[in-house]
Amino acid sequence: MGGEGVVVIGKLNHVAIAVPDLEAATARYRDLLGADVSAPQDLPEHGVSVVFVTLDNTKIELLHPLGRNSPVAGFLVRNPDGGVHHLCFEVSDLKEATEKMIRTGARVLGDGSAKTGAHGLPVIFLHPKDFDGTLIELEEVAGD
Amino acid sequence: MGGEGVVVIGKLNHVAIAVPDLEAATARYRDLLGADVSAPQDLPEHGVSVVFVTLDNTKIELLHPLGRNSPVAGFLVRNPDGGVHHLCFEVSDLKEATEKMIRTGARVLGDGSAKTGAHGLPVIFLHPKDFDGTLIELEEVAGD
Repeated sequence: MGGEGVVVIGKLNHVAIAVPDLEAATARYRDLLGADVSAPQDLPEHGVSVVFVTLDNTKIELLHPLGRNSPVAGFLVRNPDGGVHHLCFEVSDLKEATEKMIRTGARVLGDGSAKTGAHGLPVIFLHPKDFDGTLIELEEVAGD
Repeated sequence: MGGEGVVVIGKLNHVAIAVPDLEAATARYRDLLGADVSAPQDLPEHGVSVVFVTLDNTKIELLHPLGRNSPVAGFLVRNPDGGVHHLCFEVSDLKEATEKMIRTGARVLGDGSAKTGAHGLPVIFLHPKDFDGTLIELEEVAGD
């Protein structure tokens, strides 16, 4: 693909949906849509409680605010019914991906360095204004 | 799983993103993220021009309004930067799925009957107010 150091995203790791009622949302995915759902997990360091919905090819993550300064609390103020909060794509080399984003003018949220994401893997988030109003997470997944 | 006629969604067929500039969005997914993108296709009967972004496990569909009465035109008025428009899940029996949605009170958009979707397969759309602010398409895929 040439010398530009093209970032190649692999799989869509998950779609994260912010929900105002985690129990009700879980019930809808389990009982109405018939999907496999996890027990709720509190991730205090990420400010969310999460339920994983396992589909045949990817996951839905239902996010609900936990504690103060949750990254999804403001989203739910703007979108009281909930909505898609972000998409997470897998990359094999997050450092290379980050450098390319900065070089090409796509804004990396925060100070530009990788954080440890909800799955314990390095992640960055890209500014939604640079991707058609869609918050994008890039997660480094070994061997992808 | 009982006798409730549980709808079991299979794969996430695609994530549809409404975009204000189809060419620019396509360039971002191709050049910045390094994904495979299709040529743009006009689907006048659906009121959209679409570019398919092929990932390793699913697709992103970039949607831009085409003609009058496009279903994404109003979305872009409300969300000028663009954003996730809907999620499409695959089901094996759309008739059974539709009956269950109606029976349990989830609203099927339109007159409740299946339409032919952008892939030439039967689809229904579920009201976003019933699914955490997320517009959901169910598409019947044979043998899934």
